[in-house]
Amino acid sequence: MSKRLPKFFSCPSEFTLQVLGGKWKTVILCFIKEGPCRYHEIRRLAPTLSDKMLTERLKDLVNAGLITRCKIKDGGGTTDVYALTERGESLHQILSGLYKWGREHADEFGVTIGNPLALLDAVRPQRTLVNRTPD
Amino acid sequence: MSKRLPKFFSCPSEFTLQVLGGKWKTVILCFIKEGPCRYHEIRRLAPTLSDKMLTERLKDLVNAGLITRCKIKDGGGTTDVYALTERGESLHQILSGLYKWGREHADEFGVTIGNPLALLDAVRPQRTLVNRTPD
Repeated sequence: MSKRLPKFFSCPSEFTLQVLGGKWKTVILCFIKEGPCRYHEIRRLAPTLSDKMLTERLKDLVNAGLITRCKIKDGGGTTDVYALTERGESLHQILSGLYKWGREHADEFGVTIGNPLALLDAVRPQRTLVNRTPD
Repeated sequence: MSKRLPKFFSCPSEFTLQVLGGKWKTVILCFIKEGPCRYHEIRRLAPTLSDKMLTERLKDLVNAGLITRCKIKDGGGTTDVYALTERGESLHQILSGLYKWGREHADEFGVTIGNPLALLDAVRPQRTLVNRTPD
């Protein structure tokens, strides 16, 4: 993603929004900030997101250095998950703020919102990272 | 803006981003959150934003209930400024977070960013609100 970033932004908030990269990347980051997620777990949390779009958005987020692919223990072997990098973690407070504000203000705007993070426990078991594999 | 909002959002963060409404509205909110601003003061802080776009974005923000037009004392009379509503104030922490993160991380991405809030004192005097005029 860095290659496609403009060289100059007139306002820092504009730059941050560009790094977040729109609604789907922000939504994905909101899931992964709660802990490492497998691909199909993200799919279950965002069922309207197509495989093609999810694959592209994950790739963009890896390229931007916000998430990384890691290994987790899974039975006898290991399997891939996505986890926040240190840079991604630095967005944690912003991501939490966006989620919390949306939950608290949807009624005022007369809109209905899902609460995908409430499904996390059902979708994703507690897990331990084995190592981080930078892409 | 409320009329154009979808009725359902799968994730609260997606809804919040929709309310923020993209880069220019977020940038404008970042300025106004520091205190009431006149139209031409916002223009000076965002010189690449055209009159047409600024007028449209301000109208959208008023319609979304995030800002309101107010009167300030100006010499013998009063003049119009834009100020955050209570709903807009509820976005203060998110807006500050977006601005701060951008300032702190631009170097990592090799981009140059402006710091328009540093110009506030030169662009906008300290002022007292007379009343709020809801649009």
